[in-house]
Amino acid sequence: MCPVCQEKFTGIRYNYQNLREILMDKKLAKLGDAYVNFVYSLALTEIYGEPIGARVNSDVLAKALKKAQLRKFLPVRVDRHSQGDAAEALIVYAWLQGAISLQETVKLITAHMGNHVEAFTLLLEEITRRVRE
Amino acid sequence: MCPVCQEKFTGIRYNYQNLREILMDKKLAKLGDAYVNFVYSLALTEIYGEPIGARVNSDVLAKALKKAQLRKFLPVRVDRHSQGDAAEALIVYAWLQGAISLQETVKLITAHMGNHVEAFTLLLEEITRRVRE
Repeated sequence: MCPVCQEKFTGIRYNYQNLREILMDKKLAKLGDAYVNFVYSLALTEIYGEPIGARVNSDVLAKALKKAQLRKFLPVRVDRHSQGDAAEALIVYAWLQGAISLQETVKLITAHMGNHVEAFTLLLEEITRRVRE
Repeated sequence: MCPVCQEKFTGIRYNYQNLREILMDKKLAKLGDAYVNFVYSLALTEIYGEPIGARVNSDVLAKALKKAQLRKFLPVRVDRHSQGDAAEALIVYAWLQGAISLQETVKLITAHMGNHVEAFTLLLEEITRRVRE
């Protein structure tokens, strides 16, 4: 494998015991917010053939989290915004860990862009599979 | 070279005739905003050893643009926010074109993080050299 592709950002001390801890990490969610908006913008850029900068709707991520069977890992009273945060935390965690590349993430979103919820559901499902392995 | 690293996002139709056109592209700046905030967040994450999501101050980018001798490519009356936009447009353009990798960008920022203006000045100088080659 290429040393650059495989290069991980090693500065983070990962102390997550399980999926729930990743999903509930608000700091990871903030980094995830920057990452998800970037890959989403890249996907739109690919589709429209011109540079686009955009933010993913929190509702879209919350719905995707539920469809991907990940809502159950969060406390019952967690609001939709925090559900979106959870999705963002997991998506960037998978990239940081090298479980999925940025290119693959963008391709997956792009391929299902007709339905944003579906695109992020499939991304979360794929990521969950890989992170658990 | 690794096919993944070298893989470019080819959806964009690049019609830029010169550096000025890149710096003045507001759509590219929007995508650049998402990218720059992400790489900046990653640099902070590396330094502090925990996930951080942050936005780069527009003033920092405007000052870096001037120090990197790129201010002269913009009209005289362009405000500081648009100067920041110009820096963001060029930074993401370099990445999209494969002139600099995301990892290298983060490392360069991280290495000079004691002075944010200096960090982005060096990044812009390096990018300008490569884009012009």
